[in-house]
Amino acid sequence: MAAAVGAQLEMHLRPSARASFEPANPDYAARVRASFARQGAMRLMGARLAELRPGYCAIELPYRDDLSQQHGYIHAGVVAAIVDSAGGYAGFTLFPAEASVLTVEYKLNLLAPAAGERLIAEAEVVKPGRTLVITRGEVFAESSGKRSLCAIMQQTLIVLAGKTDG
Amino acid sequence: MAAAVGAQLEMHLRPSARASFEPANPDYAARVRASFARQGAMRLMGARLAELRPGYCAIELPYRDDLSQQHGYIHAGVVAAIVDSAGGYAGFTLFPAEASVLTVEYKLNLLAPAAGERLIAEAEVVKPGRTLVITRGEVFAESSGKRSLCAIMQQTLIVLAGKTDG
Amino acid sequence: MAAAVGAQLEMHLRPSARASFEPANPDYAARVRASFARQGAMRLMGARLAELRPGYCAIELPYRDDLSQQHGYIHAGVVAAIVDSAGGYAGFTLFPAEASVLTVEYKLNLLAPAAGERLIAEAEVVKPGRTLVITRGEVFAESSGKRSLCAIMQQTLIVLAGKTDG
Amino acid sequence: MAAAVGAQLEMHLRPSARASFEPANPDYAARVRASFARQGAMRLMGARLAELRPGYCAIELPYRDDLSQQHGYIHAGVVAAIVDSAGGYAGFTLFPAEASVLTVEYKLNLLAPAAGERLIAEAEVVKPGRTLVITRGEVFAESSGKRSLCAIMQQTLIVLAGKTDG
Repeated sequence: MAAAVGAQLEMHLRPSARASFEPANPDYAARVRASFARQGAMRLMGARLAELRPGYCAIELPYRDDLSQQHGYIHAGVVAAIVDSAGGYAGFTLFPAEASVLTVEYKLNLLAPAAGERLIAEAEVVKPGRTLVITRGEVFAESSGKRSLCAIMQQTLIVLAGKTDG
Repeated sequence: MAAAVGAQLEMHLRPSARASFEPANPDYAARVRASFARQGAMRLMGARLAELRPGYCAIELPYRDDLSQQHGYIHAGVVAAIVDSAGGYAGFTLFPAEASVLTVEYKLNLLAPAAGERLIAEAEVVKPGRTLVITRGEVFAESSGKRSLCAIMQQTLIVLAGKTDG
Repeated sequence: MAAAVGAQLEMHLRPSARASFEPANPDYAARVRASFARQGAMRLMGARLAELRPGYCAIELPYRDDLSQQHGYIHAGVVAAIVDSAGGYAGFTLFPAEASVLTVEYKLNLLAPAAGERLIAEAEVVKPGRTLVITRGEVFAESSGKRSLCAIMQQTLIVLAGKTDG
Repeated sequence: MAAAVGAQLEMHLRPSARASFEPANPDYAARVRASFARQGAMRLMGARLAELRPGYCAIELPYRDDLSQQHGYIHAGVVAAIVDSAGGYAGFTLFPAEASVLTVEYKLNLLAPAAGERLIAEAEVVKPGRTLVITRGEVFAESSGKRSLCAIMQQTLIVLAGKTDG
């Protein structure tokens, strides 16, 4: 039985097994891109949408001096901003047309300094629900083409039904 | 570049890629089992160690009426207890001989009622450090041989160096 | 302005300032007590409702050997169980008659070993909402009449409208 | 006994009761201000240190369009950035001279849209330790002189001994 436990876990954690989400809104990608473009904070920080699939979103952020904390690494708040947005948009890909998304809460563990040429924040939906959607995110710092995990996130989103995003 | 992002994530999330941890203490399994056996709360709840590997631990718990919350499902605190222990022991497998483990904090999302014949809590180390160890956990409810994810956890452990566990 | 900031915070954090909640259901206390009595896990652990007010709940737990973790302190999962229940019932005091409560998620920081003759878990509603209710909790360990803070919690509850608790 | 429980809680939650921290470094304020000044991200967002006491820090942030999320409110990542910094500096006020601060993790609940003329993030130390420091934070949105709570945070910091901040 012990072996079965391990096998089961691998299946659950492998993103490809989870990523078989059916978007309720065929226009999900255009809607997410329009919403992202309205986020002044993402523009201010220089973040951009890197990839989008049903239940998945990646955001990248090139390093800039003015995003730093006191030691010169990227500020944890900036790390939080991109992975929170990645989680929100991973969830939003699955929402019906007449609905908007808000973050209820998240928890972020900072594992290593956010150092390097750019950050990539990835998030995926773990549990889609009618009212609440749960996601998990990871942030990688890329340096000379090598990536290292620098933060992980667990997040709760709420579906605001009947409220358009725009 | 977008494709590379996705490929990278899959590698990082796949447990088999992470599970290449080298235990600092060759006796890690015996030490974890002895520690688990001292946890009165695990015995009280009827939990048992189901699997152990370096950086990984699974705990199973058969359903019992006296573990319930008000609707008859297993109480969230019991779910928390087994996944917190699973995370703690996943970390403890990697500790040096003269060290003890304590949970600093964790965050638990309850995704579905913990209903069924038994629960399986699995946890793995995401980031081993000299002072802090970060883990992630998942709890599955098993009903008629079918598993469903009912909780996810993100946890911080501290290594108490020079303090034996017993 | 700086002084005003501090004054403002004190007002917000002081429980008496917050505790002016109006319960939607005049029978809130009887309903919470009936619900608590249905929690097999609370009975198994020996926990009891110590105090109840609109938006507030305290649960106490006498020390017992069979609630321990590996060092003989009360297990973090047991600490979690009582403060999670305290938060849930703090919220439930404010719910309408035809509604039930579920924990969406919580985060628990363990600040000191749960050692002593008994634990007291207290929780209060920070933000009551129609769908989501946010609470904060604290757990104290009492030893020879002296209390020390041993855990703090931040929690999200969901109001299940139209679903009775029983 | 029930009354005593409530009285006890009030004492613990009242910041003035907690705020009797003795800074290990008499120059704590100058050191925090110098560290804050090095945070490019705080400058980019227009945040400033509003108040500082041993174990306490407040940061304020005037509203700007370029800090927005998709609905025009201040982005959750910006809210996170200021309350994370407030918590970090609340802790840092208590650190010895030769030590630096890093955020291990935090959890943020967003209670209401961050709307208004400015935000005030306040944080205080709940548990100071030699290695880990636990804080709690609150963010208020100020509109026409009226404040409303819009976010709460629970945070773990690590003391990096022997590492200067500069």
